Amino acid sequence: MLSIDVQHTDGKARAGVLTTPHGQVQTPIFMPVGTAGSVKGVTPDQLSAAGSQMILANTYHMMLRPGGETVERLGGLHTMMGWDGQILTDSGGFQVFSLSHLRQIDDEKVVFQSHIDGSMEELTPRRCMEIQRQLGADVIMQLDECPPGDADHDHVARAVDRSILWAKKCKQAWGDEGRPDKQALFGIQQGGVFGDLRAASAEALVELDLPGYAIGGLSVGEGHEAMTLALDATDSLFPSDRPRYLMGVGEPRDILAAVLRGIDMFDCVMPTRNARNAFAFTWGGRLRLRNAKWKTDTLPLDENCTCYACRNFSRGTIRHLFMAKEMLAATLLTIHNLHFFADFMGAIRKSIEAGSLESDAQKWVSQMYA
Amino acid sequence: MLSIDVQHTDGKARAGVLTTPHGQVQTPIFMPVGTAGSVKGVTPDQLSAAGSQMILANTYHMMLRPGGETVERLGGLHTMMGWDGQILTDSGGFQVFSLSHLRQIDDEKVVFQSHIDGSMEELTPRRCMEIQRQLGADVIMQLDECPPGDADHDHVARAVDRSILWAKKCKQAWGDEGRPDKQALFGIQQGGVFGDLRAASAEALVELDLPGYAIGGLSVGEGHEAMTLALDATDSLFPSDRPRYLMGVGEPRDILAAVLRGIDMFDCVMPTRNARNAFAFTWGGRLRLRNAKWKTDTLPLDENCTCYACRNFSRGTIRHLFMAKEMLAATLLTIHNLHFFADFMGAIRKSIEAGSLESDAQKWVSQMYA
Repeated sequence: MLSIDVQHTDGKARAGVLTTPHGQVQTPIFMPVGTAGSVKGVTPDQLSAAGSQMILANTYHMMLRPGGETVERLGGLHTMMGWDGQILTDSGGFQVFSLSHLRQIDDEKVVFQSHIDGSMEELTPRRCMEIQRQLGADVIMQLDECPPGDADHDHVARAVDRSILWAKKCKQAWGDEGRPDKQALFGIQQGGVFGDLRAASAEALVELDLPGYAIGGLSVGEGHEAMTLALDATDSLFPSDRPRYLMGVGEPRDILAAVLRGIDMFDCVMPTRNARNAFAFTWGGRLRLRNAKWKTDTLPLDENCTCYACRNFSRGTIRHLFMAKEMLAATLLTIHNLHFFADFMGAIRKSIEAGSLESDAQKWVSQMYA
Repeated sequence: MLSIDVQHTDGKARAGVLTTPHGQVQTPIFMPVGTAGSVKGVTPDQLSAAGSQMILANTYHMMLRPGGETVERLGGLHTMMGWDGQILTDSGGFQVFSLSHLRQIDDEKVVFQSHIDGSMEELTPRRCMEIQRQLGADVIMQLDECPPGDADHDHVARAVDRSILWAKKCKQAWGDEGRPDKQALFGIQQGGVFGDLRAASAEALVELDLPGYAIGGLSVGEGHEAMTLALDATDSLFPSDRPRYLMGVGEPRDILAAVLRGIDMFDCVMPTRNARNAFAFTWGGRLRLRNAKWKTDTLPLDENCTCYACRNFSRGTIRHLFMAKEMLAATLLTIHNLHFFADFMGAIRKSIEAGSLESDAQKWVSQMYA
């Protein structure tokens, strides 16, 4: 069974240990995204060496290709991905609303067309639980409705109601399949930037007494300020003995703001996607490796970094590899960025233990976003 | 200084040890190709773990991008590639004739337009030696003229004469730069499928007393039979105390035929390019991983293979990764194919030691090309 043991607090910030069937990870934790059965550009060995301990995989992508049944026949996601660490799967809901061509939605189901081949697909709360059982992740998500960042109060209120209804149906299906000890189901809070809706959503979910709670519907264009305002009540809305997961975040500045408001878990494509676009994260800000100024630079991406890329390659070489369109370029920057995010989360934990996160966060933000 | 110590012979076949400034490798050896500063799809650690010991890099590609001067400022190819093993660079000649838009050729120089940006470039024997000094490989190649596989006797004869002239000029420039101990210069035999021209070319090169001899102008469409006929006299044409390198080969069947005729060294894009096109080499022949029959196959690519891909991934997963266009698919097959080629060369060496290469080669060919 999943549990979180909060060992240190610093204001609302929490440092702890999350336990799942695949072991323990320290929180706050950042999960790299393995959309289609692979964290893009790296092997599981490289992922592990870069310090990643828990990853997210996308139910939407895996249900469309190769399909939940095929994943199950291939031994489940852990076996397919060669990954013995922890895995969390999302519900597919977010991608149905953002990637697919949505055709119909009611309280029973969502019908959509695949972005891959245009095929008509259906997702119900029960089917969502079934597919996630086939995928076999340690943590699974309820099906939810995620309205766009600029949706009005009425629209968001309806999405909150439907998401609560689906949370109940998912919990029922999850219990029917007898998995409370094998896979931990998280509810997803919606409510956009509206405090009353965030509160109502959280209250209804907490009544369901789920193993963990996710905060959805943020990082969808509402901006840093609106996001932090929406997170301000997190600590008082959710019980302290359950993990809190902010979906789709992300940006180091946003992670810091969220940890300061009591969040334990994060996921985002940022380190991997930025890597493929030739951006390297460092404590001094982002480097754009395509920039001509790196052409003959013999220094590593970050002189203090101990990742494989920094130990073996110069900025000049990595720039060349990007210009020559070599796959190795993306692989090296992915390794570096994942290492940076693991390092960054480790520094946050140490800072919580030392009771200095508020001031450290200010310092780090001013260094990174100078 | 480069040397080859032939330790076992089996007919004309030789098993030995090649020594260069970066250590020793066992021969016959296969060199994967790192065209533009990277063996595509793998890190140097993965390359080494797959059993590769010596690689080829392309002078043509590196001179155009990032340029010899830049490579030198970045510490040379070994430093750039993070590769402490041996490196051989070709002369650029082959790509000038096959990839670029050739504009002019005479005994002094070849003028061509870059396939990357259309810029006008010039290569002389001296410039070829200078660029290869900047790249810093252990083994370097003379500039040569490589006529197409269907060129007639007159055309090939002129290319042989010019290549001999350029060999002399390259040797002079190489000596002028004082590198006989740091970089070993190989001459390149031309002559197409014409025995008299192959003999004349070899005789002139041997007179130059170079550290090693390459056989060029084969594997350019002449076919397996014509290639083996052209190689039949190799053993008698070149001194036994110098390594013999067949350029651009390749296909396991061709490697076997060439080893049986006294060849020590090979290079080819075959394992890496095939990997990116979803073909896996095995002792039982090639597998096409895009084939639907692998969809739910839980076996590794090859049940007897100990490579990273076979230890951690099923055919079904690798097929999925190809269908989903994940970079990891190419990386895993590249690791596997490089491991297969290293394994294959190891088996050839053992077979030479046992004195059974002729019969083993027949057996292997019948298994692989059933």
